[in-house]
Amino acid sequence: MYKINTNYQKLPGSYLFSNIAKKVSAFSEANPQADIIRLGIGDVTQPIAPAMVAAMHKAVDEMADAATFRGYAPDLGYDFLREAIVSHDYQARGCDIHADEIFVSDGAKSDSGNIQEIFSQDNRIAVCDPVYPVYVDSNVMAGRTGEYNPQTQMWSNVIYMPCTAENHFVPEFPKENPDIIYLCLPNNPTGTTLTRDQLQEWVDYANKIGAVIIYDAAYEAYISESNVAHTIYECEGAKECAIEIRSFSKNAGFTGVRLGFTVVPKELVCDGVSLNSMWARRHGTKFNGAPYIIQRAGEAVYSAEGQAQVKEQVGYYMNNAHTIYTGLKEAGYEVYGGVNAPYIWLKTPDHMTSWDFFDFLLEKANVVGTPGSGFGPSGEGYFRLTAFGSHENSVRALERIKAL
Amino acid sequence: MYKINTNYQKLPGSYLFSNIAKKVSAFSEANPQADIIRLGIGDVTQPIAPAMVAAMHKAVDEMADAATFRGYAPDLGYDFLREAIVSHDYQARGCDIHADEIFVSDGAKSDSGNIQEIFSQDNRIAVCDPVYPVYVDSNVMAGRTGEYNPQTQMWSNVIYMPCTAENHFVPEFPKENPDIIYLCLPNNPTGTTLTRDQLQEWVDYANKIGAVIIYDAAYEAYISESNVAHTIYECEGAKECAIEIRSFSKNAGFTGVRLGFTVVPKELVCDGVSLNSMWARRHGTKFNGAPYIIQRAGEAVYSAEGQAQVKEQVGYYMNNAHTIYTGLKEAGYEVYGGVNAPYIWLKTPDHMTSWDFFDFLLEKANVVGTPGSGFGPSGEGYFRLTAFGSHENSVRALERIKAL
Repeated sequence: MYKINTNYQKLPGSYLFSNIAKKVSAFSEANPQADIIRLGIGDVTQPIAPAMVAAMHKAVDEMADAATFRGYAPDLGYDFLREAIVSHDYQARGCDIHADEIFVSDGAKSDSGNIQEIFSQDNRIAVCDPVYPVYVDSNVMAGRTGEYNPQTQMWSNVIYMPCTAENHFVPEFPKENPDIIYLCLPNNPTGTTLTRDQLQEWVDYANKIGAVIIYDAAYEAYISESNVAHTIYECEGAKECAIEIRSFSKNAGFTGVRLGFTVVPKELVCDGVSLNSMWARRHGTKFNGAPYIIQRAGEAVYSAEGQAQVKEQVGYYMNNAHTIYTGLKEAGYEVYGGVNAPYIWLKTPDHMTSWDFFDFLLEKANVVGTPGSGFGPSGEGYFRLTAFGSHENSVRALERIKAL
Repeated sequence: MYKINTNYQKLPGSYLFSNIAKKVSAFSEANPQADIIRLGIGDVTQPIAPAMVAAMHKAVDEMADAATFRGYAPDLGYDFLREAIVSHDYQARGCDIHADEIFVSDGAKSDSGNIQEIFSQDNRIAVCDPVYPVYVDSNVMAGRTGEYNPQTQMWSNVIYMPCTAENHFVPEFPKENPDIIYLCLPNNPTGTTLTRDQLQEWVDYANKIGAVIIYDAAYEAYISESNVAHTIYECEGAKECAIEIRSFSKNAGFTGVRLGFTVVPKELVCDGVSLNSMWARRHGTKFNGAPYIIQRAGEAVYSAEGQAQVKEQVGYYMNNAHTIYTGLKEAGYEVYGGVNAPYIWLKTPDHMTSWDFFDFLLEKANVVGTPGSGFGPSGEGYFRLTAFGSHENSVRALERIKAL
């Protein structure tokens, strides 16, 4: 008789955003006249910009012609895209990363969920708290996280690194040594980040204790301050301890287009085994490449036109971030983030819980946000609003919140 | 200090098709004048047909317009595609499968590699021998297969079910009970399949011993005989024991487009836990949906135009299969497959090993095939040719082989 992976049953409830969707849908049914503004899920709303659209049309036409048709893509990605990534995202920043260290994928969610597979089951993970839920959930499924305590909302074998207003959202080195450290910077959901010098301390720490850092830089395009690193490889020694995960979802609006990549430097070696080779083997066995059409769209992101259009789109969302941030401040809220990230993180008023504030905002202002507690126990009492809506809706949402 | 997943080190050598690519590339460098015909890797060569091209162009335009832009797709796939799948592939065949049992993905390779995750580590798997290598390799990575014996080329904890000319490529029920049974039908690489009645016996067997069947039906579109099932759900009791994996790669030529789906019936319950819910959770946590543009292309496959064009393309390849099959017969080879599948499986002449025949064919005829031993120990002494080349090349390859 076959047996299931019982780790799945340990996962409490369903995925955060499904819960929100259900609540909103129930409210909407009960109040069909309500004009709901959604600043909850971190999904973009601006259309794909012209350079990427042109590249996709051209690639579709190539697929329609026997002379230019492409079958299976190289497992690790087309050279044209890997070379563009290396040149613009790394070598232009003085980081010595090469094309054979880039693994093109269908997105950062897949990569950040799958990357744990190349590590043994008895590694202990550390995560910032609050953070994007996929890191912990994928490790729960793999059986690395111990038991869940519904009271504390913590897993017995996960090291939580609280990031709250009290420590200015800068995680402290844990008391016990972790093996795998997940860092999402700029952080989802807090919208805060570390300076390059603070990140260098984490790289030094990881190298000292022999930990590997999984560095999720999905929001890199939103960095506006010069003392913040755009890639962890700006830090010395990072190639010896860090894997970096990147996305095209938030810079180029590819949430529905699906493209990302992971960097596994050749210097990353554990007991004589190259993690680059392991990830290549994983990719080659369980993945068949991202679509040609989509990889051409990714290449176009790095063209002069594409870069200008992407910059304009990021500027549009960051203008929303500014609107939301300053509006909340004016309304008397305690507010964080929004400077190097498209997320605004606010302290709920009057010690409301995150979910109470969710209900309050949905009912009184018809605005959907994301409860901070959904991202980890230290997110309790906080709330996330995203800048990914339209400007008009960002302005309207803040008018309603101010009027409460 | 972090630790790697040491199961990866147990994997012998690299992936079959990478090895072939390296050999061909070395031969090509040494013999730059050689006109190599590739009938090795199972990749299609015909361009994407007009209905699917039109659907992709339209979807790209929708993504370019704020009014019709789509962000994150539903994790499990758009309803328009899931409904089309259910209606054409299941309900039209009298199978009572519903849209919420369909999980759209980026392809059958990902799904067949990932599906083992929802089962516990102490399940014992059974595979046909020879077969597509991903089933075994993904279980090696998960630590289910025991130790590898380089002499027998077998894993100590895998049940091999030989499919050879001696048993007419019909696997026998194993002596020891397996927990998870992988069936790829029509089979890659042998091109042979089971009749509906023979498949029914496997469903009955699985239900009797409490095993789950992972049914890979990637080559379903090539079935030409009426006594062969197009889906395992044509068999009674299959919804209680079988997961079906399907692909758009071989029917619609989507190898470089990337689309597939997996069917997990609601009736599939183990110890009170729904496998459908488990796979939904896996999809929701580690996958972010297939691209909207690609899902629209998948929908177009089911349109009247799309169906006609796909049928024509399948016919084109099956004509190649006939050319290769009859040509080999005329040249005196012992030949199998090619009737319900685009693969032709031949016995190597003069007791040559599979790799020796690979070298022989590459050197003497400049034709690339796939060594049968790459698909499992019982593939030794066999060789696979695919019908996915152009017709001209299929004809030329056979002329060369006949002239040897």
